[in-house]
Amino acid sequence: MSSIRTPDGSRVYNPLLQPDLRLMLSENDELGLQQFCEVLNPVIVSEVLQGLGPADVWRVLSSIGIERQAEIFELIEPSQQIELVGAIDRQHLSQLVEAMSPDDRVDLLEHMDEEQLEALLPLIAQAERDEIRKMLSYPDNSAGSIMTTEYASLPENISVGEALSRLRQQAPDRETIYYVFMLDEARHLRGVITLRELILARPGVSLADVMRRDLISANVEDDQEVVAKLIARFDLLALPILDDQSRLVGIVTHDDVLDVVQEEAIEDAYRQSAIQPFEHGYLSTPLLTIAWKRGVWLLVLSVMALGTATAVRAFGGTETDTSGSANTNWLDWFLPLVLASGGNTGSQSATLVIRTMAMATLSRRDMWRIAYRELLTGAILGLSLAVFSWGALQLLFGRDWMQAGVVGLTISLVVTMGSVTGSLLPMFFEWLGMDPALMSNPLISSLSDILGVVIYFSVAMALL
Amino acid sequence: MSSIRTPDGSRVYNPLLQPDLRLMLSENDELGLQQFCEVLNPVIVSEVLQGLGPADVWRVLSSIGIERQAEIFELIEPSQQIELVGAIDRQHLSQLVEAMSPDDRVDLLEHMDEEQLEALLPLIAQAERDEIRKMLSYPDNSAGSIMTTEYASLPENISVGEALSRLRQQAPDRETIYYVFMLDEARHLRGVITLRELILARPGVSLADVMRRDLISANVEDDQEVVAKLIARFDLLALPILDDQSRLVGIVTHDDVLDVVQEEAIEDAYRQSAIQPFEHGYLSTPLLTIAWKRGVWLLVLSVMALGTATAVRAFGGTETDTSGSANTNWLDWFLPLVLASGGNTGSQSATLVIRTMAMATLSRRDMWRIAYRELLTGAILGLSLAVFSWGALQLLFGRDWMQAGVVGLTISLVVTMGSVTGSLLPMFFEWLGMDPALMSNPLISSLSDILGVVIYFSVAMALL
Repeated sequence: MSSIRTPDGSRVYNPLLQPDLRLMLSENDELGLQQFCEVLNPVIVSEVLQGLGPADVWRVLSSIGIERQAEIFELIEPSQQIELVGAIDRQHLSQLVEAMSPDDRVDLLEHMDEEQLEALLPLIAQAERDEIRKMLSYPDNSAGSIMTTEYASLPENISVGEALSRLRQQAPDRETIYYVFMLDEARHLRGVITLRELILARPGVSLADVMRRDLISANVEDDQEVVAKLIARFDLLALPILDDQSRLVGIVTHDDVLDVVQEEAIEDAYRQSAIQPFEHGYLSTPLLTIAWKRGVWLLVLSVMALGTATAVRAFGGTETDTSGSANTNWLDWFLPLVLASGGNTGSQSATLVIRTMAMATLSRRDMWRIAYRELLTGAILGLSLAVFSWGALQLLFGRDWMQAGVVGLTISLVVTMGSVTGSLLPMFFEWLGMDPALMSNPLISSLSDILGVVIYFSVAMALL
Repeated sequence: MSSIRTPDGSRVYNPLLQPDLRLMLSENDELGLQQFCEVLNPVIVSEVLQGLGPADVWRVLSSIGIERQAEIFELIEPSQQIELVGAIDRQHLSQLVEAMSPDDRVDLLEHMDEEQLEALLPLIAQAERDEIRKMLSYPDNSAGSIMTTEYASLPENISVGEALSRLRQQAPDRETIYYVFMLDEARHLRGVITLRELILARPGVSLADVMRRDLISANVEDDQEVVAKLIARFDLLALPILDDQSRLVGIVTHDDVLDVVQEEAIEDAYRQSAIQPFEHGYLSTPLLTIAWKRGVWLLVLSVMALGTATAVRAFGGTETDTSGSANTNWLDWFLPLVLASGGNTGSQSATLVIRTMAMATLSRRDMWRIAYRELLTGAILGLSLAVFSWGALQLLFGRDWMQAGVVGLTISLVVTMGSVTGSLLPMFFEWLGMDPALMSNPLISSLSDILGVVIYFSVAMALL
C-alpha cells in the first residue's frame, strides 16, 4: 500500500489521541497498546506515532505482530522511518522489511545509506533480496520505481468460478484484486478482467471468453508522469507495467498517481518561482540544500539584471554631470538589480511556505522554525549575491569599492528582508483567516520593492 | 463515471483514427461506425470525436444505443458537449440526459443556459428531475456537486452470500461496487465493506459481523478539497457523503479526486502569478474574461508600484537641478513601475501557456492561436494600465500630459511585449526539446526588464 504524503513527506500530524497513548506507555498497558494499534485505522495510528520518539514508537509497535507493524510503518514519513530503522536491531529490521509491501520497501531502502543497506540485505530471504535488487535498479521516477509486484494473476484457460475461488486464495497478500491479469507461462500479459466483471459473469464460462484484450499498459522504464497520465486518462484502478519482452512485472495503483500528481504540482510551483526542485519536503531538507537550489537561479537572475543595468546606463543614466563626487545618478542603474534580488528571493520564500502550508497544518513551533530558517537562508543568499555584485560592479561598471559596497550591502539586506517577509506574509494571511495563496509572487515582489528602495537609498546616503 | 480533463476541459485529442472514421462517414458505413463505437475503448472514441463537427458526431453516435451514447458523451469536454446539445432535438436530448450518470449529468446541466434547461427538464422523468434539482442546489465545489448517487447499498442483517447475490443485481448501474454501504431504513450509514472483504468472508456470516464501523465520511456541504484530502489520506476508492441527518446521499470516487487535485494545482499556479483563477480552460475561456482576471491584479500591482515611485522620488530621485527642461531624472522614479508591468504580465502569460502545454499536446494551430490571443490580451491590458498611469502621473506626481504620456505609451508597449514574449518563450523552449517550465516567472521578468529599459528610454528620447 502506498500513501499520500505531504510536501514534507509526512502525513497529517494527528495529536488528538496522543495523551491516551502516552498514558498507556507510562502505565505499561500492553493490552491497551495492542488494541490501539489493531482497532484504529492504521492511517490514524501512523499519524499519532509521528509525535513520539523512536524508542516509544517501537514500544507501541512491539505490542502487535510483524505484519501489522509493517502496515503501520509503511505509512510513516520517510525521514522518521530512517530514524526508526536506526533504533532497532538488524533481526527485527529484516523481519520488518520482509513484511513490507515491495514498493514501500524499495522506497525505504532507497532512503537508507549504502552501509546500512549492505548490512541489512544478507539477512533478507534470497527471493525477496533478488526482487529488491531488481527494483532498486529501476531509474528514479520510472514506472518501475513506483510499481508493486503484488498483483493478482490467473491463467486464461480456467472458468470464472474457478477464477473466483483461486482469487480468494491470492487476495490476502495482493495490493488489489479489483483488476486481475491473465498471464501465459512466460508471464506475457494476455488479458485483464475486473472483479466486477468477474462477479457478473456466469461461473461456467472460460476466462478467455470474458477477459478484455484491449490492454492499456506502460513500460517499466517509462516516466512516472506517463503512468499517471494513462491512469488518469482511462480512469483506471491499476495499470499493468511490462518489461521489454512484454512480460508483466508489476502494477501501479490509483493511489500512487495522486502521489505523482501532487509531487509534480509542487515541482511545477517551485520551477515557476525559480527554485530548482528538491526531493524531500521543505522542513526535512537541509537548509544549505535549499539555499543552493534557490541560489543558482538567483545568480542567473543577477547576471541578467546586470544586463538591465547596462541598458539603463547606456540609455537613461548617462553621468552627464560627472563634475562633483556627489553625483549619484549611477545608483539608478542598479535599482532593477537591487529590487529584483529582493523580489525574487521573497517570491521563492512565499512559494515554499504557501506550498508547505497547503499540505499540512503547521504548529506554531513549525512557523517559528520556518521564519528562522528563512532568515538564515536569506542571510546566506544575500551575502553570496552581495559578494557577486560587489565584484561585478567594480569589474564591469567601473565603480569604486565603496560604491560597489553600497549596492552589495543593500543586496544582502534586501535579500534577507525579502526572504523573511516572503515567508511571514503568507503565515500572517493564514492567521487572519485569509487564503495565504493570495500572497502571489508579484505582490510579494512589489511589497519588497518599496522596502528595497528605502533600504537602497538609506544605505547610499549613509555611506556616500 | 467521471474523467480527468485537461486544463482546457478537454481530454487528449486523438487524431490517429480520424481518417478511418471520416471514410466510414463518407461511405455511410453504419456497421463500421457501430463497431467503431462499441469495440474501441470509450475514452479513445471520445477523443477521436473531438475532431468532428456536431452533425458528424451525432451521425457516429446514432449507430449505437442510448446507454453507450451517454457513456461516450460523458467523456467529451464540456464546451463541445454544449455545442452537441444544441444540435439534437429535445426528445433525443432528454433520453441522453436520463442515461447519463448523475454527476456528469449535473455537470452538463450546470453548463447549459437557463432557457435550455427549463425547456429540457419537463421532458425528463419525475424521479430523475427531482434528483437533478436537488443536485443542482448544492454549492459549487462542494462534495454534493461532485458526488454521484449511484452507490451500492445493502441492509446489514443479511448474510454475506445473500449480499453477493444482491450486489450482482445492483452492479450494472452502480458507479462502483468495490465499496458497499450498509444502511438502515432511514438511509443512515451504519457500516461499510469492500468487495474484497466480502469475497474473503464466509458466506454464512451476517454482514453486521464483518462490516467496518469506523466510518470515514464527509458532509454534502464540505468543500471538494476536504473530500480530496480524506480520500488521499486514507487511500480510499470512494468516500460516503452524508447530509446533516447522517443519511447517505452519495459517494465521491477516487477518480474525481484527481480532477480536484489537478484543478487546485492549476488554480494555485494562477494565484502564484497573480491571475484570478477562472473556471474553464485557457483556450475555451473568452479573451475578455482572461484579461479581466489578470487585469485586476495588474492594477493592484500598479498602485503598489506607484508607492515604489513615491519612495524613489523621496529618497533617490530628487530633482536637484530643476533648471533645464532637459532634466529627465524623474524618469527613474517610474522605472520600477514600467519594468514591473512588463514582468508581471509576462509571468502571467508564461504561467498560462506552461500550464496549458503541461496538460495537452498543442497543435501548431493552437500555438498560433495562443500567440495571437496573448498579443490581443497584452494590448488590452497595456492600454488599460497605460491610461491608469497616465492619469495617476499627472494627478499624483505633477507630470505634464506629455511626460505622463511617455510613461503611458511605454507601459502599453512593455505590457504587450511582455505578454507576447511570455507566451512565446515557453513554446520556443518546448520546440527546442527543453522543459518549458524552465521559463520561470523571474526569468521572464528579467528578460522583460532588459527590453523594458530599452523601450522606456527610447520612447523618452523620441518624445521629450
